[in-house]
Amino acid sequence: MPSTSIDRTALGDLARGAAFLGSGGGGDPYYGQLLGEAEIARSGPFTLIDAAALPDDALVAPCGWIGAPTVSLEKLPAGDEAVNGLRRLEAIMGRRIDALMPIEIGGSNGLAPLLAAARLGVPVLDADGMGRAFPESQMAILNIHGLSACPSIVTAADGTLAVIETPDNLAHERVARSLSVALGGIAHMVEYPLSGANAKAHAIPASVSAAIAIGAAMRRAREDSEDPFAALYAALRASGLYAHAGSLFDGKIVDLERQTEGGFSIGTVVIDAFDSDRRMTVRFQNENLLAREGDVVRAMTPDLITVMDLETADSITTERLKYGQRVRIVAAAAPAALRTERALRFVGPRAFGLDLDYRPVEQLNGWTA
Amino acid sequence: MPSTSIDRTALGDLARGAAFLGSGGGGDPYYGQLLGEAEIARSGPFTLIDAAALPDDALVAPCGWIGAPTVSLEKLPAGDEAVNGLRRLEAIMGRRIDALMPIEIGGSNGLAPLLAAARLGVPVLDADGMGRAFPESQMAILNIHGLSACPSIVTAADGTLAVIETPDNLAHERVARSLSVALGGIAHMVEYPLSGANAKAHAIPASVSAAIAIGAAMRRAREDSEDPFAALYAALRASGLYAHAGSLFDGKIVDLERQTEGGFSIGTVVIDAFDSDRRMTVRFQNENLLAREGDVVRAMTPDLITVMDLETADSITTERLKYGQRVRIVAAAAPAALRTERALRFVGPRAFGLDLDYRPVEQLNGWTA
Repeated sequence: MPSTSIDRTALGDLARGAAFLGSGGGGDPYYGQLLGEAEIARSGPFTLIDAAALPDDALVAPCGWIGAPTVSLEKLPAGDEAVNGLRRLEAIMGRRIDALMPIEIGGSNGLAPLLAAARLGVPVLDADGMGRAFPESQMAILNIHGLSACPSIVTAADGTLAVIETPDNLAHERVARSLSVALGGIAHMVEYPLSGANAKAHAIPASVSAAIAIGAAMRRAREDSEDPFAALYAALRASGLYAHAGSLFDGKIVDLERQTEGGFSIGTVVIDAFDSDRRMTVRFQNENLLAREGDVVRAMTPDLITVMDLETADSITTERLKYGQRVRIVAAAAPAALRTERALRFVGPRAFGLDLDYRPVEQLNGWTA
Repeated sequence: MPSTSIDRTALGDLARGAAFLGSGGGGDPYYGQLLGEAEIARSGPFTLIDAAALPDDALVAPCGWIGAPTVSLEKLPAGDEAVNGLRRLEAIMGRRIDALMPIEIGGSNGLAPLLAAARLGVPVLDADGMGRAFPESQMAILNIHGLSACPSIVTAADGTLAVIETPDNLAHERVARSLSVALGGIAHMVEYPLSGANAKAHAIPASVSAAIAIGAAMRRAREDSEDPFAALYAALRASGLYAHAGSLFDGKIVDLERQTEGGFSIGTVVIDAFDSDRRMTVRFQNENLLAREGDVVRAMTPDLITVMDLETADSITTERLKYGQRVRIVAAAAPAALRTERALRFVGPRAFGLDLDYRPVEQLNGWTA
């Protein structure tokens, strides 16, 4: 079937693209990139396959890490969690997994399945379950489209494994979240096992290759001493997934409130403009949810909001935010599948307790395609 | 194999005995008694079998409810949780369960397996995992003796089922506890699946029949207008499990602090004597842990401490304690298996964060056998 190799360069591009698409969440991809480079050096490049080429009766295993990304900075995986969980899915389903898929393309979870796939000897599907990163499992397009999260398998570094089965995807998220807390703040999760047909019909298509293309555009802009932000916006628009993109605000981080709460990093970051009294505040729950300039909303979930280093154009995950950082706040339109009336009930502002009606970022900022 | 029938009268006796052995915890057995009476009316008495008669290769499933007993007052089981969890154990083990066993004889969990056993068409073993009730799963004698808690299955009223596998029984308790909280505060758990040989070697023997005998002695004392407390103490001593028993204090509840915290009911009850300025405080975590008169310790875990109604001799679980109740504080020596040096590391005062060396209740009170 049609496949692409992910070599060392493409892996770096994927990490860079996934960091942006994380919208502040999904964990910093840097550690996953290091692990991936070591794996490539050992066994060669990773294999990415087109969803279109997948047989309808294939078994696709979406997977990734669940927990507060602040914890993942301090607690490294033991190495066997992912494979243990995936092997258990195979035992439950009584068959082999044909491909892995990132449950979310954003952040470290955009890369996480590569290593596990290499260990299992299967490819990674060029698709994901969120088109970005979101803090909660039921925010996956797979839930929005009515698929079941179960059987789902949570595994931890201490060898603990839990199989979850429930008809209620919200109960699944609640149970998985509590497990991640009980297991030290972070755990691996296999969830929403998919047939090939369902992967094709419901996953966000071509998002892994989109992330690679976005990262590659930024890398090349830097190599050619061109503007990496302009390259980012152009690559996002060219992806076919993120139709609008642009800058919201430049400034310095002057205040930061952040706490780990119920398995999430929750807080607000305040950015002051360099040469005026303009101020932007960004509220986050693992991911950035809402960017406001004074009282004016400039972007809101499910549109992507990423805090980036003004000089290097590196994406800064919410757990890496620091007082004094000079940053640009960048936004991009969410994939269309996340903007339907039904999807907004799961990933729109009210799903996060924000008393706001969703308005697309391009309307809020007068961007035209 | 040698078996005993548990009819309506014996069920009431079991509820009464288990309520005392709960040491304040394990949940009020009254609701389980009502369910059990309905089941007996429908299908006849329950069957209790001697552990000694069990084949060595039998499969015994210890089970019960996990969660804060305060929640169980408000949230009733849906009815299928226990059977769903037990059927899953059978699927995992690839064989039928031969007998159920209460994970703890104390409180509602002393009765809980009867109903599930009737549905499965298997007997209940005359043994349990704690010889009383304890708040945490790793306090079972089965853990103290080095057996594994897993595979363990947690099920909830909403249809959620989780299989837990871990080499670490403390991780098992942590995971199960967090599940019970995520699932609404209470869940059914199958744990420490045992071979017949291990049930015979490690479970607390004959504790179900002991609870029935204790309850029967109190019932008969009431029927004959004799002192139910004297009958209780005599029955405890005659059981062969609880070698010493007696009264610690009479008085009125004048203060009560209680909160549901991390899945437990935690608090302190203060009892003032009727006709002096003597005062007893009892500290609890689901179960009563420590009874002090002023600064003098009168009883401590793992010895049993139960608050009883002074007039009716009903045992009062910690979630039923109320200001103004006129009570007698009763204590009994724990089964010998819970008093070994090794056992005290799991169920002695320091296991509950109390900075005290264990001293047997009979020494603290000058009781002689």
